[in-house]
Amino acid sequence: MKEETLEGPIVSRSRLEFLCDGVFAIAMTILVLELKVPDLADRRSVAELASALAHEAPTFFSYLLSFVVLGIFWFRHDQQYRAFRIITPGMLMLHFAQLAGAAFFPFCAALMGRYPTNPLTIVVYLGCILVYAWSSFAIWVVARKTGSTADLTTAAYEKSRSRWLRACLVVSMFFVFNLIRTLAN
Amino acid sequence: MKEETLEGPIVSRSRLEFLCDGVFAIAMTILVLELKVPDLADRRSVAELASALAHEAPTFFSYLLSFVVLGIFWFRHDQQYRAFRIITPGMLMLHFAQLAGAAFFPFCAALMGRYPTNPLTIVVYLGCILVYAWSSFAIWVVARKTGSTADLTTAAYEKSRSRWLRACLVVSMFFVFNLIRTLAN
Amino acid sequence: MKEETLEGPIVSRSRLEFLCDGVFAIAMTILVLELKVPDLADRRSVAELASALAHEAPTFFSYLLSFVVLGIFWFRHDQQYRAFRIITPGMLMLHFAQLAGAAFFPFCAALMGRYPTNPLTIVVYLGCILVYAWSSFAIWVVARKTGSTADLTTAAYEKSRSRWLRACLVVSMFFVFNLIRTLAN
Amino acid sequence: MKEETLEGPIVSRSRLEFLCDGVFAIAMTILVLELKVPDLADRRSVAELASALAHEAPTFFSYLLSFVVLGIFWFRHDQQYRAFRIITPGMLMLHFAQLAGAAFFPFCAALMGRYPTNPLTIVVYLGCILVYAWSSFAIWVVARKTGSTADLTTAAYEKSRSRWLRACLVVSMFFVFNLIRTLAN
Repeated sequence: MKEETLEGPIVSRSRLEFLCDGVFAIAMTILVLELKVPDLADRRSVAELASALAHEAPTFFSYLLSFVVLGIFWFRHDQQYRAFRIITPGMLMLHFAQLAGAAFFPFCAALMGRYPTNPLTIVVYLGCILVYAWSSFAIWVVARKTGSTADLTTAAYEKSRSRWLRACLVVSMFFVFNLIRTLAN
Repeated sequence: MKEETLEGPIVSRSRLEFLCDGVFAIAMTILVLELKVPDLADRRSVAELASALAHEAPTFFSYLLSFVVLGIFWFRHDQQYRAFRIITPGMLMLHFAQLAGAAFFPFCAALMGRYPTNPLTIVVYLGCILVYAWSSFAIWVVARKTGSTADLTTAAYEKSRSRWLRACLVVSMFFVFNLIRTLAN
Repeated sequence: MKEETLEGPIVSRSRLEFLCDGVFAIAMTILVLELKVPDLADRRSVAELASALAHEAPTFFSYLLSFVVLGIFWFRHDQQYRAFRIITPGMLMLHFAQLAGAAFFPFCAALMGRYPTNPLTIVVYLGCILVYAWSSFAIWVVARKTGSTADLTTAAYEKSRSRWLRACLVVSMFFVFNLIRTLAN
Repeated sequence: MKEETLEGPIVSRSRLEFLCDGVFAIAMTILVLELKVPDLADRRSVAELASALAHEAPTFFSYLLSFVVLGIFWFRHDQQYRAFRIITPGMLMLHFAQLAGAAFFPFCAALMGRYPTNPLTIVVYLGCILVYAWSSFAIWVVARKTGSTADLTTAAYEKSRSRWLRACLVVSMFFVFNLIRTLAN
């Protein structure tokens, strides 16, 4: 092993996978910390608790939506990561951009839960997804350039790249549309 | 490996196991964030601190109960997951429903700690367990249909399915009973 | 594998290890959430921030102490766990008692940071360590009885048991001493 | 295995790696809890939300900076850890100092986000990095002394040690400079 431990791969493939899974699991679970138990005048009143919880409906909706979005992030990460043999420096840096997006998501979820009708909220929410999606696309391209996906046929690589690009463009379109709508506000 | 990385299993069996374990561990540990240190007029007063903590008794009870419930969730998940050879798309989606239930549990625990005498609290708490239990049952059935549990004899599968169904029905019964009690309130 | 998946070991040895590591890592990291950034009248004042942080000294001390205690918990758990070949039902239940103790620790740390001079604080803090220590001792004894530590010589088992018992008795002594001191208050 | 389980290595190499990864992932993710959704008078006002978020700009900057710092911590840890064959008692204790530094980082990030212009904030922030960096350096030296890095050539060890030392000295210089600037304030 000798010199290799320092001259070898930039980062352990399994440890980065582990770090990502940790960040995803934590982000998905701390979403719940944004849900606050309401204050009630009459602690036993069903009607009061029901109306307080109904009042928090956007927060619950934002919780579910954000859980699903993070779930999709994780699922796509798993699909992509399987194709990588090694992690190169460029891929590592892009992974941190991607993780920062995922770890930032609970804030977007809280904003969405609190101000669902504010157009700027949607811009911030989509902006976070945007950072995540483009980082993923960039990782895929960089991985190919640096030979990390050598086990993949060119056809399989390109099919997957088109799919990522399409997803990025759809998110970007939504983002730009909402940005314009917000600025025009 | 080639094409297989994209055409292969929908999701890595070990990574989903890992994500689940992460969500369970985090949900179990952030339960403690609902326990608040009381405000005291006299910081050194044993009597005041004792009565403040005694006042929070329902919160401590809810902490312990919810820890045990999440522990049982985790234990049953481990038992079930061992029988799966692969994770199919349907199983993955049901796993997210299951995980959303587990991750939502700290909110139910906080509600229970704060308003233990409010009938609606019990309905929400049981509702969350209900989502978890039925998702587990559905995963078991879907896994069988899609061949993920092919190593299991039909007898073993059916015995286990009956056990899950019975658990689901018991929880549902409690849920409906409390729902009626609450609506009649 | 067939029937064995359901009739086999009660719980996966590696998954329980994983769950424990997760709970320890989270408990150690969320300790920091108890440290609050102080409110300052003059945001640029070094003197004001310094005195505010100095005022929070007990909280920082409690943070460090609790981090070390959880570190020792984790270290002892690793030492003990290596000797187990399988996890039996009794061991699993005791593990949950142990984990509940570890997961509850951030609350004890917060209490200690806020009311370090209140005798009851020490009782609660030591009580939590007590639950953890006796659970560990019980796991060791139960593991032996149920054959989980069959690879261990009787001498090694007994030497280790004595060490655990001694640790438990020391903690119990401190606990009882502080309990009496508090009740006499 | 017999006696070895108790007389063997002080701690499992893979479990310590796991604990570290957990602490890093959690610290990186709970940074987001310091970001608070602002209170708005007009919930639909884009201008008000925009100015409120702009007002929180230092907090977002601190979030990103701290995420990057923790990412570098993790990356360096992975590089270093690969060279260790076993974990000796001294290395374990130093690892806890290192982890305490990483787990404490969210507090430094919150302080930085709230009082970015207070000179003492920079001292605390750099102080935390200092503890981390010197612990890492000490682990490297102790690991060599206790034979844990036996697979490494002397040249590779020394090259790496110089690099660590240089990083520590740079951080120390910044720390001392800011300390003097703060005391002179």
